[in-house]
Amino acid sequence: MSSLLARAMGKNTAAVDSAMEELLAPAPDLPESVRKAMRYSLFAGGKRLRPTLVLEAAACCGLPARKALKTAAALEMIHTYSLIHDDLPAMDDDDLRRGKPTNHKVFGEALAILAGDGLLTKAFEAAALNAAEIRLNGKATAELIRVVAYGAGAEGMVGGQVADLEAEGLGKNLSSACAAKTLESVHRRKTGALIVASLEAGALLAGAGARWREALRSYGECVGLAFQIADDVLDVVGDKKKMGKRGSDRDNGKLTYAALYGVDGARAKARALVETAHARLKPFGARAAVLHELADYIIERDK
Amino acid sequence: MSSLLARAMGKNTAAVDSAMEELLAPAPDLPESVRKAMRYSLFAGGKRLRPTLVLEAAACCGLPARKALKTAAALEMIHTYSLIHDDLPAMDDDDLRRGKPTNHKVFGEALAILAGDGLLTKAFEAAALNAAEIRLNGKATAELIRVVAYGAGAEGMVGGQVADLEAEGLGKNLSSACAAKTLESVHRRKTGALIVASLEAGALLAGAGARWREALRSYGECVGLAFQIADDVLDVVGDKKKMGKRGSDRDNGKLTYAALYGVDGARAKARALVETAHARLKPFGARAAVLHELADYIIERDK
Repeated sequence: MSSLLARAMGKNTAAVDSAMEELLAPAPDLPESVRKAMRYSLFAGGKRLRPTLVLEAAACCGLPARKALKTAAALEMIHTYSLIHDDLPAMDDDDLRRGKPTNHKVFGEALAILAGDGLLTKAFEAAALNAAEIRLNGKATAELIRVVAYGAGAEGMVGGQVADLEAEGLGKNLSSACAAKTLESVHRRKTGALIVASLEAGALLAGAGARWREALRSYGECVGLAFQIADDVLDVVGDKKKMGKRGSDRDNGKLTYAALYGVDGARAKARALVETAHARLKPFGARAAVLHELADYIIERDK
Repeated sequence: MSSLLARAMGKNTAAVDSAMEELLAPAPDLPESVRKAMRYSLFAGGKRLRPTLVLEAAACCGLPARKALKTAAALEMIHTYSLIHDDLPAMDDDDLRRGKPTNHKVFGEALAILAGDGLLTKAFEAAALNAAEIRLNGKATAELIRVVAYGAGAEGMVGGQVADLEAEGLGKNLSSACAAKTLESVHRRKTGALIVASLEAGALLAGAGARWREALRSYGECVGLAFQIADDVLDVVGDKKKMGKRGSDRDNGKLTYAALYGVDGARAKARALVETAHARLKPFGARAAVLHELADYIIERDK
C-alpha cells in the first residue's frame, strides 16, 4: 500500500470508527447485549473499504469527507451485517472471520441474526441523519436511500448471496457454457452492488450531476469485480494466516475466477478492469488520487 | 368489525397489495427463488394493520391515501420480515404462522433469512420511492426514513425481540417487582415501535406539523400496547384455529399481561388505553373515523 493510500485509509478509518461509536452509543432502549454483538463485528478489523469509497467519492465531487461520515458508517454497517448473516450455520457456516470467532459463535445464533438486522436498519437511520445534517434536498435524499437499499437488497447484495448459494457445486461442472456468466452475475451483485452504491452515495451527498455519478458508478463496477477476482486468486495463492480464513473455496469445489481462467488468466482480467477503472476517474483530476491508488491496491493486496 | 372499518381495511388492503406486487415484480437481477420466498410471507393473509395506519394517518393530515401506498407497503414488508426472522429455529422455532407453514419450513433457513433481509431492505427503497414521487422536501424525507428505521431497529422492534428473548422464563417469577415494567418495555418496542412509526410516517408524508404528529404518535403508543394486551388475552381465551397458532405463550411459561393482571385486569387495562387513544384523535375530527374504529377493533377482535 502506498503511503498516500495508507494515510488516507488511516484517516478515513479513524473518522468513520468514531462516527460508528457515536451511532452505537449506549441508549436507554438499546439492549446492551445486541449493542455488544453489533459492535463486536463492526470493530473486528475490517478494512473500511466501503466507507473510504463513500468519503473519496464525496471528496471527488467537492464535499468534505467529514460531511459524509454517517453515510460512510452506514455502508460499513451494511457490509458487516451481510458478513454476520453469511457466516450463520444455515448459510456458509463459518466459525472464523478475520481470524476471530464469528458473531454467532460468540453470541449465539438468535442474537447474531438480530445484530445483523439491527445493523442493516441502523444503516438507513445513519444515512438519513447524514442527509438531514447537510440539508440535502428531497430528491437527492430519496435517491441516496434508494441507491443504498437497491445495492444492498434482493436485486443487489442479498440477490448475489442467493445466487451464490444456488451456484454451489457449479465449480465441478466448468464445461458449462454459462459458468462464466453465472460467476460474473453473482459477484456483480454480491460484492459489486454495494461498492457501486458506496460511490454513488458519496456522489449524491455532494450533489453531483449525472456525468460524475456515472463515472464513479462505472469505476465501482470495475473495482468491485477486480476485488472479487483478486479474492479468488488470494484464496489459491494467499497466506491463510494473513487472510484469517479456515478452509477455502477451492476445498469446497466452488466456482471461482481462478478455477475458470487459471491464476494468471484471472490476474490479467483483474488488471484490465483496474485499467478501465483508472480511465473512468479522468473527470476528477487530482481529486481522485486516493481512488486511483485504491484501484491498484485492490489487485496488489495480500489479504 | 364495523362496516366502515371493514370497507376501509378492504380498500386499503387491495391498494397496498397492488403496490407490493409492483415493488416485487420479476426483475432481471432479482433471483426468482428469493422473490417467491418474500412474496410467500407477504401475501400470507396478514391483516395489513400497519399499512392501514400509514394511510389513515396520512389521510388525517390531508394527504390522499394513494400518495402514501409505497410507504404503507414498506411498513408491511418490515412487519413481515420480522415475522420470518422471529419464526426461525434459532429464535421462536415456529412451524406455523397464520395457519400456514412458516417461511423456513417451506424455503429452508438460508432463503428465509435472506428473504427477511430482502424485505427489510426493499422497505427502505419503497419509502424512498414514495418520497421522491410526491416530491417530499429533504427534511421530511430524511425524517421519514429515520423514523421508520428507528422504529424497526435495535432501539425499536429488533430491541424488543432481543428483550423478549432475554425475558423468557420471567413468567415463572411473577413476584419480581420489575416484571410489569419489563413486560411493558418489551412490548413498547416489539409491537409498539413499528405501529408508532407507521403513524408518524403517514404524518410526515403529509407534511404534518409537530402537534398532529405528536397526537398520532401518542394514539399509536396506546393502540400498540392495547394490541399486545389483547393478544395476550386471546392467547388464553381465544380459538386456536382462528388464530392459526400452535402452542401458546402460557404453555411456554412466558411473561404475559394475562398472567400478570389476570384476564379481566388485562382487558380493563386495554380498554383504558383505547379510551386515551380516542382522545388523542380529537384534532382530526371526522377524518379520524377509521382510526377511531380501529382502536375499538383492536380489543374486540377474536384473532
